[in-house]
Amino acid sequence: MRAVAMRDHELHLRELPTPTPGPGEVLVRTLACGICGSDLHALRFTEKLIEAGKRAGGAFVMDPLRDVVMGHEFCAEIVDHGPGSPKTLKAGTRVCAMPILVSAQGVSTVGYSNENPGGYGEFMKLMEPLLLPVPESLSTEFAALTEPMAVGLHAVKKANLTRDDVPLVIGCGPVGLAVIAALRLEGLRPIVAADFSPRRRELALALGADAVVDPAKDSPYATWQGLAAWRDPSKAPPLPPWLPGPPLRPAVIFECVGVPGVIDAILTNAPSAARIVVVGVCMERDQFEPMMGINKELCVQFVLGYTPEEFAATLGHIARGEIRVEPLITGRVGLDGVARAFEELASPERHAKILVEPAR
Amino acid sequence: MRAVAMRDHELHLRELPTPTPGPGEVLVRTLACGICGSDLHALRFTEKLIEAGKRAGGAFVMDPLRDVVMGHEFCAEIVDHGPGSPKTLKAGTRVCAMPILVSAQGVSTVGYSNENPGGYGEFMKLMEPLLLPVPESLSTEFAALTEPMAVGLHAVKKANLTRDDVPLVIGCGPVGLAVIAALRLEGLRPIVAADFSPRRRELALALGADAVVDPAKDSPYATWQGLAAWRDPSKAPPLPPWLPGPPLRPAVIFECVGVPGVIDAILTNAPSAARIVVVGVCMERDQFEPMMGINKELCVQFVLGYTPEEFAATLGHIARGEIRVEPLITGRVGLDGVARAFEELASPERHAKILVEPAR
Repeated sequence: MRAVAMRDHELHLRELPTPTPGPGEVLVRTLACGICGSDLHALRFTEKLIEAGKRAGGAFVMDPLRDVVMGHEFCAEIVDHGPGSPKTLKAGTRVCAMPILVSAQGVSTVGYSNENPGGYGEFMKLMEPLLLPVPESLSTEFAALTEPMAVGLHAVKKANLTRDDVPLVIGCGPVGLAVIAALRLEGLRPIVAADFSPRRRELALALGADAVVDPAKDSPYATWQGLAAWRDPSKAPPLPPWLPGPPLRPAVIFECVGVPGVIDAILTNAPSAARIVVVGVCMERDQFEPMMGINKELCVQFVLGYTPEEFAATLGHIARGEIRVEPLITGRVGLDGVARAFEELASPERHAKILVEPAR
Repeated sequence: MRAVAMRDHELHLRELPTPTPGPGEVLVRTLACGICGSDLHALRFTEKLIEAGKRAGGAFVMDPLRDVVMGHEFCAEIVDHGPGSPKTLKAGTRVCAMPILVSAQGVSTVGYSNENPGGYGEFMKLMEPLLLPVPESLSTEFAALTEPMAVGLHAVKKANLTRDDVPLVIGCGPVGLAVIAALRLEGLRPIVAADFSPRRRELALALGADAVVDPAKDSPYATWQGLAAWRDPSKAPPLPPWLPGPPLRPAVIFECVGVPGVIDAILTNAPSAARIVVVGVCMERDQFEPMMGINKELCVQFVLGYTPEEFAATLGHIARGEIRVEPLITGRVGLDGVARAFEELASPERHAKILVEPAR
C-alpha cells in the first residue's frame, strides 16, 4: 500500500506491506484522517515521546529509525475481516474507532507504532470490537473529527464542573477548540478563550466561546475576572482568609497549548483555588514554581485521551450537530501532500485541521 | 520584651518593643511555640519566600533587613485586651489561634512579618475573634501542636478520600507525621510512609503508619503496590485501557518533603490515576515532566494551611487524645536556645518538634 512513513524525523511517501488482520481485527481502507498536533510533536521529538512513554509505563513503543505510519484521527471503511470474525459490521461499512489495539501483550496504539500503521496510509488494521459504525447521514469528513473532539469532551468531564465554574481556555488550536465545543455542550457560560492568532480566536467564537482575548494585548485572567463575578455575592462560598483576591466564581483553566512554560504561567496568573486541566501535550521537561500552586491552593489535573464511552458519545454528538466541526476543517490533502501539510500546520493562521484523504 | 529576631538570614536574641494590641486584638504571653520547618526555609530563603508571596497575591510581606520574630505554632496566655474588647476570654486564659491578623488592609501573618511578632518572643498580639480557649485538661505543650497538626488535617480533607484509597506519605518530618495522624483519624488503612531516617520511620509508626519504607533500600511505590491490591478484583472500576499497570486501589500520595525534585520523582513513580497532595513547601523553582502527569492522568492538589473550622477541630482532637502528639515533642529550649535548635533540626535523626518556651 501507499503510505506516508516517519523515519528519523522525516516523512516520506513509501510503498509498504498492506497489514494483515489477525483474530479480532479487521482490515480497513482509510477514507479521511486528521493531522494531529501530537503528530507534529512526535515528528520533532520522537525520542522524547518514546522515552517518556517508556518511563510512564510502556506507551508509544516504537523504533524511530524504522517506518512509523502516523494518523489516529480517522474515518475508514471495512475491507476484510480477520479469522473467526463474527462480521457484525459488513465490508463497505464506514467506521470510526479508538486508535488502539489490545492484545495479550497489552495495549498498543494505531499510529505511534512500527507494527500498526495509522491513517496516513491506504489501509489499517483495527480492533473489531472497538468499531463504531458512522451514521448514514454523517459525512466522512465530520466523522473523522470524532477523535480530536473526544479529547475535548474527556477533558471537560475530568474537570468535574459545577454550574458556578467559569472556564478559561488557554490556546485555541484544535485541542482548545474541542474543549470549547465540549464546554458549550455542557451549557457552561461564559466561556473565555485566549490565543495569539486572530484566525484561531475567530474559530473559538465559531465553536462557542463567549469572549476571546489576544494575550499580546490583554490579560486573559483580567478578562476572565471581569466575567467571573458572583451575580449574588452572598452565594460565594467561604475561602480561607489568606487566599488572595476578591471572591470570584471558581476558575477552571484548560491548558491547551502544550509547550514548556505555559503551565508555569497559568500557575502564576491563576486566581485562588483554580483548577487547571492540562490537555496540551508538552513532551519536554518543564519548570514551575511550587509556591504559586501552594499559596493559591491550585489543583492540576493532567488528562489523556478519552474513555470508550466518551469516544462513542462524541460521534453521536457530531452526528446530531450538537458539536459543530465544520469550521475546523481548513484543508484536504492526498498522501503526497502530507509532508507539506505538516509544515503549513506550524503556522496557526492558515489551518486548524487538515484531513488526509489517501484516495485523493 | 525578649525575642529571637531574624534579620538578613541570621537569628539573634534581642530586646524589642512589646506589641500594643489594637481594637479587636489581645496581648498574649507566649507559653510554648513549636519550630516549624517553614521557619528553617524562611531563614535560608527569605527573599524567595517574599518574592513568591508577592507574585501569588501578597502573602509574607516583610523586609528581610528588619527584624522578623518568627513562630506560628503557639499556645499562649491572655495578658491584656485591646480597646473596646468584649473580654469574652479573661486575662490568664490559655489560648491557641490561627497565626493571622485580619484588618481593613487585608490579612497578615503572625510570625512572617516585621509588624506582628510570633512565638519566638515573650509577647504577641493576636486577633481576639480567632482565639480558642485550651481545655483545662490539655497540657500547654500538646496544645502548641494544634497548628502543625491542623496542616495534616487540612491536607487530608483536601484529598477528598474515599474508603478505597490507599495513602502513601512521602517524608515523615512534622508535616508527614501530621498527615499520618489525620489519615489514622479518618480510619483509612493501610497507611504507607517513607523516609530515609530511621528515627522518623519510628515516629511514623508511633503516629499510626501501617508500613514504613526506607527509600534507600526499597521503593515506596513497590511497597505501596504490595498493599494496594483489591481484595475483590471485580470491584475495581474500569480504567481507560491505555493507562499502564495492574488495576490497584486508588493511590493518594502526600508530598511532605518540600525540596526541589520531589514532585518530579512522585510524578515519575506514581501509579496511574494517582492523586498527589502537595503539603511540603518548596520555595525554589522546580522541574517536572508534564508527560508523566499526562500519560498517567495524575492530579496534583497543592494545599496550604487550614480553615478556621479545621484548626478548631484539631485542637479538639488533640484534647480528646484522638490525635497523638506526645511522640512528636523531642526537645524544649528557651529563647537563648532557638538559634542552636534551628541548626539541630537540620538533622532528622534527633528531633521532630522542638518547643520554644520564652519563660524557660
